[in-house]
Amino acid sequence: MNPRLRVATESVRRFLRKGAASRAKNIVEKLHPADIATILKNLSPKERWDVFSLLDKKTCAEVLKELDSLLAAEVLEKLSDEEAVEILSFLPPEDAVSILDSVSDSRRDKIIRLLEEKQKEFSRVLEYGEDTAGRIMSTSFLAFREDTTVEEAIKKLRESKDKEVFYIYVVDERGRLLGVVSLRSLLLSNPNDKLKDIMNPYVVSVRVDTDQEEVARIVEKYDFLSVPVVDENNRLVGVVTADDVIDIITEEATEDIYRMVGASDEELWERSLFKIALYRLPWLAFTFVGEFISGLILKHYHGTLKHFIAVSFFIPLVMALGGNVGNQSQTIVNRALATGRIDEENPWRVLFRQIGVGLIMGLISGVIAALGVSLVQKNHTLALVVGVSLLVSMTLSAFVGAVTPVIFKKLNVDPAVSSGPFITTFNDIAGTAIYLTLATILLLKTKPIP
Amino acid sequence: MNPRLRVATESVRRFLRKGAASRAKNIVEKLHPADIATILKNLSPKERWDVFSLLDKKTCAEVLKELDSLLAAEVLEKLSDEEAVEILSFLPPEDAVSILDSVSDSRRDKIIRLLEEKQKEFSRVLEYGEDTAGRIMSTSFLAFREDTTVEEAIKKLRESKDKEVFYIYVVDERGRLLGVVSLRSLLLSNPNDKLKDIMNPYVVSVRVDTDQEEVARIVEKYDFLSVPVVDENNRLVGVVTADDVIDIITEEATEDIYRMVGASDEELWERSLFKIALYRLPWLAFTFVGEFISGLILKHYHGTLKHFIAVSFFIPLVMALGGNVGNQSQTIVNRALATGRIDEENPWRVLFRQIGVGLIMGLISGVIAALGVSLVQKNHTLALVVGVSLLVSMTLSAFVGAVTPVIFKKLNVDPAVSSGPFITTFNDIAGTAIYLTLATILLLKTKPIP
Repeated sequence: MNPRLRVATESVRRFLRKGAASRAKNIVEKLHPADIATILKNLSPKERWDVFSLLDKKTCAEVLKELDSLLAAEVLEKLSDEEAVEILSFLPPEDAVSILDSVSDSRRDKIIRLLEEKQKEFSRVLEYGEDTAGRIMSTSFLAFREDTTVEEAIKKLRESKDKEVFYIYVVDERGRLLGVVSLRSLLLSNPNDKLKDIMNPYVVSVRVDTDQEEVARIVEKYDFLSVPVVDENNRLVGVVTADDVIDIITEEATEDIYRMVGASDEELWERSLFKIALYRLPWLAFTFVGEFISGLILKHYHGTLKHFIAVSFFIPLVMALGGNVGNQSQTIVNRALATGRIDEENPWRVLFRQIGVGLIMGLISGVIAALGVSLVQKNHTLALVVGVSLLVSMTLSAFVGAVTPVIFKKLNVDPAVSSGPFITTFNDIAGTAIYLTLATILLLKTKPIP
Repeated sequence: MNPRLRVATESVRRFLRKGAASRAKNIVEKLHPADIATILKNLSPKERWDVFSLLDKKTCAEVLKELDSLLAAEVLEKLSDEEAVEILSFLPPEDAVSILDSVSDSRRDKIIRLLEEKQKEFSRVLEYGEDTAGRIMSTSFLAFREDTTVEEAIKKLRESKDKEVFYIYVVDERGRLLGVVSLRSLLLSNPNDKLKDIMNPYVVSVRVDTDQEEVARIVEKYDFLSVPVVDENNRLVGVVTADDVIDIITEEATEDIYRMVGASDEELWERSLFKIALYRLPWLAFTFVGEFISGLILKHYHGTLKHFIAVSFFIPLVMALGGNVGNQSQTIVNRALATGRIDEENPWRVLFRQIGVGLIMGLISGVIAALGVSLVQKNHTLALVVGVSLLVSMTLSAFVGAVTPVIFKKLNVDPAVSSGPFITTFNDIAGTAIYLTLATILLLKTKPIP
């Protein structure tokens, strides 16, 4: 937090403590909604609510938009349905709907119904699927017919309330997108020029049902500051701007990172710790069953373990190093898929590279581990068993880690699901099996170690 | 890849095979540089070079900018220093310098020296530290004095070659930033108005030495499409636009994700698999030593293991579940720090939540594991040992995982460094110690299990 906001936060807190609410209000009123949100984040729930209640409804709406989902949920919980509707109706439908993601489904539906009664717009936004261009686009844009003159366009621009206009879109009589005119060319053209003569007709657009990640990738690829959204008949219905795309990219990265460790992004909106634990339960259960299977493998080989207790000493080493490499190759391939760095249809080069790195790391680790085991246990056969197990399990783990995301993607399962816990557990089962099998074959011919 | 580009790729490949280079050239010439880059990505190294050689030098530069670092490195390797200089001089210095990150340091320095001889601009960019606003900003922007009239400003705008202008900046006689004028207000103002009368004086700027992550966070927070960059005397020296910020956010997320698994983003530019293995070596060595310590703990307790071989069966379970929870809490706290979702000075709420979730998961896992062990081994004491070990090690792991990133951040170490391998290894040592100590205390009083 920057020093200016820290001072403001302290003053607000002090005034609240003294009961000087109006002075606290004076401080926050002058700030940008994003800054008010930062201050709220650093207050206690009680103080937060006190400050929020001081704000006028429009500012409440703007602050709510900037708040973390968890804090937005906290504030919304204290508002009555009617208050929530009054506040949210100040926001564009796409923002209001996204804020409501943080309340229970039944309450969300009720508030949206009330909002729809106030504004027709809301139904339209909800027609589009979650995470599509239609859901995130802004419906406030300027579009004029192709015969409009520059002079007329400027006149209409003057009448529009929207201050953040950078492009003007050109449409035909049915509202179909024909081209785009930047404000710069509008400014530099003759007042009598027609838009169709100065427009750029090569305008890239996305469809309302395009996935938001795909929209982000297009904006990122072509360095756009905004991209128009059209319906199935190529009619212009909205605009996605770069600042929306920035939010999407951050959100998707967070989602991917959470999934890597078997956590869910639902946690972001969840206040109950028990529910968070429940969200993580599926992967926990998966790990649980997998490691129990590892245990059964060990049980199966209990004869070997009993005779050569030193075999058990290196179970952690074999498990951890394999898991390490597997996680690396899986994470790197996943990220490459998410950022479009590898083509899904031609992933071989990236896969072979990951497996190659796994093999090299397996070789290095195997040799060093064999030397280490020789030194500590003075048993060359056990050293060989540990070394070879590491080489095999690390290479296998790199292979499985690299291939799984690509297969999942082909099967249309989100590849980020094949995450940390999956690879770690697979590797633990495979590693234990390889290690104990090798130990049984090679060691049962030698004398027991004390 | 979209169907249109797939068809283009196949045609290019076919024409190259037939030796009809000029027809291949016809196809690619018409495409956006970002699309040419996509096609190149899907060709073999030989084909890639053939197509690249067909392009004119300016297009080469634009394509190089869009290429993945690994492929950019491949192409640059085939260019002579003189060719590289000729191509790169078509790009703004910040882009040329960033592309050169993918070649060896000595070659990079040489090419930059040659570029500096051609264009003074280059030295200026290199003055700023890596990953700062100065390094990524564009130096092409429009700034006029406060007394400039709207009419004069429009005239100057007409003369400027830069097509992507959205804002005009207002500066005083020393070039210090006074305010900003949007093209919209320029368009809607009286020709005789002075810029100082129509400008917005509340302009947020960043310093040349501001870290690029901080720049991204500011643009993200305030939904800017661009932010001016000033030097230590508040003189306007550049502009960072939202499309640069999108690249930064993607890049930083990739970096964080790589570090989570002990890999380095250097891999992105590296072609040699051995070097990649070397980049990962520090964490591999860390894991290695840590798991060897786990092994020594097991060796220390070899008496317990020898008498109660079934104790060894559940080592994987205790290790994996603890690691799982630790990774989760660490990853979530790390991400919250990276996206500014928690304030570094007041992280307690988020930390307590993570530890709470760890405790709940430890309780659930402990109870289920105890039941499972009872069932499989018919030994209630062992069941108790496994259950309690899980409860303790999972809670501890959640605690360490949550606290480490915050401590690292306080110590100014990149918190993403305290990544997967660190937590997994710590947890393996702690988990093994807790489990074997408990087993020794509680089990050595009972009869051996067969």
